Amino acid sequence: MALTLTGVYSVLPTPFDAAGRLDTASLRRVVDLFIGAGVDGLTALGVTSEVARLTEGERREVLDTVVAHSGGRVPVVAGTSADGLAPCLEYSRQAQAAGASAVMVSPPRSPKLNSESVVRHYEALAREIDLEIVVQDYPPVSGFAMEPVLLARIARQVPRARTIKLEDPPTPLKTARILEAAAGIPVRIFGGLGGVFLLEELLAGAAGAMTGFAYPEMLVAIVSAFRAGPPDRAADLFYRYVPLMRFEFQEAIGLAIRKEILRQRGVLEHATVREPAAVLDAGTREALARLLGWMRDVQAAPWIPA
Amino acid sequence: MALTLTGVYSVLPTPFDAAGRLDTASLRRVVDLFIGAGVDGLTALGVTSEVARLTEGERREVLDTVVAHSGGRVPVVAGTSADGLAPCLEYSRQAQAAGASAVMVSPPRSPKLNSESVVRHYEALAREIDLEIVVQDYPPVSGFAMEPVLLARIARQVPRARTIKLEDPPTPLKTARILEAAAGIPVRIFGGLGGVFLLEELLAGAAGAMTGFAYPEMLVAIVSAFRAGPPDRAADLFYRYVPLMRFEFQEAIGLAIRKEILRQRGVLEHATVREPAAVLDAGTREALARLLGWMRDVQAAPWIPA
Amino acid sequence: MALTLTGVYSVLPTPFDAAGRLDTASLRRVVDLFIGAGVDGLTALGVTSEVARLTEGERREVLDTVVAHSGGRVPVVAGTSADGLAPCLEYSRQAQAAGASAVMVSPPRSPKLNSESVVRHYEALAREIDLEIVVQDYPPVSGFAMEPVLLARIARQVPRARTIKLEDPPTPLKTARILEAAAGIPVRIFGGLGGVFLLEELLAGAAGAMTGFAYPEMLVAIVSAFRAGPPDRAADLFYRYVPLMRFEFQEAIGLAIRKEILRQRGVLEHATVREPAAVLDAGTREALARLLGWMRDVQAAPWIPA
Amino acid sequence: MALTLTGVYSVLPTPFDAAGRLDTASLRRVVDLFIGAGVDGLTALGVTSEVARLTEGERREVLDTVVAHSGGRVPVVAGTSADGLAPCLEYSRQAQAAGASAVMVSPPRSPKLNSESVVRHYEALAREIDLEIVVQDYPPVSGFAMEPVLLARIARQVPRARTIKLEDPPTPLKTARILEAAAGIPVRIFGGLGGVFLLEELLAGAAGAMTGFAYPEMLVAIVSAFRAGPPDRAADLFYRYVPLMRFEFQEAIGLAIRKEILRQRGVLEHATVREPAAVLDAGTREALARLLGWMRDVQAAPWIPA
Repeated sequence: MALTLTGVYSVLPTPFDAAGRLDTASLRRVVDLFIGAGVDGLTALGVTSEVARLTEGERREVLDTVVAHSGGRVPVVAGTSADGLAPCLEYSRQAQAAGASAVMVSPPRSPKLNSESVVRHYEALAREIDLEIVVQDYPPVSGFAMEPVLLARIARQVPRARTIKLEDPPTPLKTARILEAAAGIPVRIFGGLGGVFLLEELLAGAAGAMTGFAYPEMLVAIVSAFRAGPPDRAADLFYRYVPLMRFEFQEAIGLAIRKEILRQRGVLEHATVREPAAVLDAGTREALARLLGWMRDVQAAPWIPA
Repeated sequence: MALTLTGVYSVLPTPFDAAGRLDTASLRRVVDLFIGAGVDGLTALGVTSEVARLTEGERREVLDTVVAHSGGRVPVVAGTSADGLAPCLEYSRQAQAAGASAVMVSPPRSPKLNSESVVRHYEALAREIDLEIVVQDYPPVSGFAMEPVLLARIARQVPRARTIKLEDPPTPLKTARILEAAAGIPVRIFGGLGGVFLLEELLAGAAGAMTGFAYPEMLVAIVSAFRAGPPDRAADLFYRYVPLMRFEFQEAIGLAIRKEILRQRGVLEHATVREPAAVLDAGTREALARLLGWMRDVQAAPWIPA
Repeated sequence: MALTLTGVYSVLPTPFDAAGRLDTASLRRVVDLFIGAGVDGLTALGVTSEVARLTEGERREVLDTVVAHSGGRVPVVAGTSADGLAPCLEYSRQAQAAGASAVMVSPPRSPKLNSESVVRHYEALAREIDLEIVVQDYPPVSGFAMEPVLLARIARQVPRARTIKLEDPPTPLKTARILEAAAGIPVRIFGGLGGVFLLEELLAGAAGAMTGFAYPEMLVAIVSAFRAGPPDRAADLFYRYVPLMRFEFQEAIGLAIRKEILRQRGVLEHATVREPAAVLDAGTREALARLLGWMRDVQAAPWIPA
Repeated sequence: MALTLTGVYSVLPTPFDAAGRLDTASLRRVVDLFIGAGVDGLTALGVTSEVARLTEGERREVLDTVVAHSGGRVPVVAGTSADGLAPCLEYSRQAQAAGASAVMVSPPRSPKLNSESVVRHYEALAREIDLEIVVQDYPPVSGFAMEPVLLARIARQVPRARTIKLEDPPTPLKTARILEAAAGIPVRIFGGLGGVFLLEELLAGAAGAMTGFAYPEMLVAIVSAFRAGPPDRAADLFYRYVPLMRFEFQEAIGLAIRKEILRQRGVLEHATVREPAAVLDAGTREALARLLGWMRDVQAAPWIPA
């Protein structure tokens, strides 16, 4: 039976040791940290999992590790995007076999892609696998911009593909437009982009967040508060936490920052990011330390260690 | 004599009335508001001034209005980018004749542009006009990414082009890399991008901010605090204000938000943005109202009216 | 009354003298050469007219010169694309006032443009001017890919915008798809891209070619032969001439080649291309000479001087 | 010992049966056809081999089949590009183990890639494998434009990476500029792009062609004639054949045309192209038939069957 996704799904980083080798012990610690933070699910092999920098064997090992170690505590979504339908199907079947609860799929990166091809891609996927499909709308990665009517059409024609990971700003506005275009179809939209617009996405009707922010506790607190009553409490939390989300979500270097935070939190042995990658410089480290200090001292974020 | 830019330069929006006609009365009020906020200079005809949506006559009227109304209180930078050298030169000469203190110029948008052409563009400009040239590094607009070594080379070869408006994230890291590459050359880097990384840019060595954020008072407060002593006070201010900068700086809809704030501040008669443009929806307006209320009540930002 | 475009429309280069100044004497000679070649119309201020490298005054002077000098012998289409609606409207009104018979307009280059905005752009244009609108479909220039259904929708909603200059390859396939999608609507499609797929475009239902190839005689011969009977004669001519079209239509340097040919044909005083531009190197000149020699000696193209 | 590439290398299509399954029998026939045509080498797993649409197992099967079936008759180049260094290294090691003579590698597709990262990528590759590296310069695929000085720098710093597959037009001009920039370094440049500028590339100093054109006999004839004496004979052949190269090399649909030709030549059982892909329409088929007929009857190309 298809999973209905909602709440906070944390996209997992893929940890590497100092030599750049896959570090599954750290990965298990991240899984525990994130589940302990109260997330509703985990996403493995996403863009910020550096899936494009993994070998085939490593892809499988990562997914097996995550599914095994989460042990049914929360559902696991597996990124299975590929530039062609055939490898996307193979990755998706592997994910299903490995015990994933859903797959996350971008339109296949391909020159001269068009709307019909995109719809066919999701249709073919839905025919071949029995899992919920998260449609990832992230134009810089796929090279294809899906307008709200196209996302609504996919939802209408492919009932299994009614969950959207929306990363095409302005995401709050687009969330509202997609829900409008989808009319009666029960579409679920997840914000991504590091959580930087989480509150506004929730206000616009989003079902949650799916992103890799290194403090999922903050995302969980915001979403829980949002569900519990009027948005004021969620908004207050969000505004206090968003300076950090913003800092982490820097182009090119965001993942290095995220891994450094997770290293400081004691779950990653190393903050290594694989090539090609920008490396954290001293200035960025100091700016991070300053901001974390402020979050701890001024915003009293309980998860930031002294 | 060339102007040495530093501090906060506010990029001016171009106000329109309900029918979309240029509204110079509102423009003069914006000029007064911004100068009253303590900015060090004004920038007219920038990307977020909707320069691409102005007619030739309007371009001139805007610049004349800004120069005349600022009346020497602060220097005025004029955006004069064009896809070809000839119109860029013409715009720049007009700007000089109109009394601008500097011009701001992107690499000319052109297929197959290369580094040599970019250097030649700035060299030709420096030969033809007597103003300081602000090199705008905003790849989504110019279609050309300038690596730090190229920006340093421009600074070395074109002494008049040693001010950079940096909008190629991660801007703090790139600020540091450009300063490194420029070595002894006195390069001045201004952050843009709505101020969203202003603190980190200053920490990395930036000379200030050049952006159109609707509350330049906040930018001025941050930069002043940063200059006054250790960065703690500036950082505290910045972290408190950045949730609003982040909200305003949304792709596609950011300028509509900015103009709506300035309308609420009483300086713009209308928040009209010219076509093609995304229009503010009810959800975005409510989210803005919520955030402004929080800024006023919780952060006690003195400039936010009840 | 709206013009019904068909046949060969030559996009005019804008000639410059050795110092890069507008050379209207050469422009008049090009007009005469092209009209003498039998073209059905002329297009001024197109992309390959270097319109992006002209000042405002030059734009007007070019259009006035072309309209005056063509003197009603053939209709004149004026490129009036701009990144905003307001300047596009102004350019279009100027074109109408100057005596142009149609305007050619791309979707406005703008981040996050969407289909609705594109339709609104053409609707607004059709409300404001009384000329036929040539919809230019050239994604590298506009940054926006229009699928056949969108082009058909524009044709349906904006009766004045039923002529398409198609430069989104594969153009023969897309020609067929647009005609299919437009169903009963009388859409006229012109191939561009230097004529490199002219035969196949005609076979797919195109109404002609609108491009700046330096030997419009060849385009006219092909289109005439195509209309005169079975396509064999047109095909034979096309296949013999296309090696030259291909050579001329090189990215970055194509316009420099075109101007060099027109210089050799005695109509341009200089082959100057404005900055930013790639310059013809010795190798390209020699390759051109070799190819022209072959066209003259082997294909007996009567227009190629010894 | 490193291979010195020169002449004609044919990029192999990957054949599929009607159901889209890998068809190694057809692949072997293509290998025989191409070797029989006199090519100097074969390239497997290139972009037009639909490598992005193959599963991991299929990648290996294709390469094993090609190496085994070519049986040392000609060297085999294996495409091993990946978005990250780790999978690129793994693919390259697999290629070396499988018996490939060289690998072909694009810069890793990655947001915010810069020149330093690109150089590091090739350096790391050269440290890890013992094969010649073909640097593929195809910006639409890699998303990164390499200027001649960068390609020359790679050649200087990475002696194993002195072969370039150049697909960044204008390729003849860029060939000359790279050779200039490389000065004394023995760089070998191969044209790609379907052979559409082969003659001009050779005139500019290219070492040959590496492309998948369905009639490698024509490429071989041109290159042989070019080497045999003054370029007149090669030029005459090229100009006669290029109309077909041009037709085949259409964006989006080019590979479908190529496979259809190879099906008609009797080597592919089916012309199936994998999703996402444009499908040949009736018009394109008819245009192809017309052109092939002309090539046979008028140009007397001996390889075109009646």
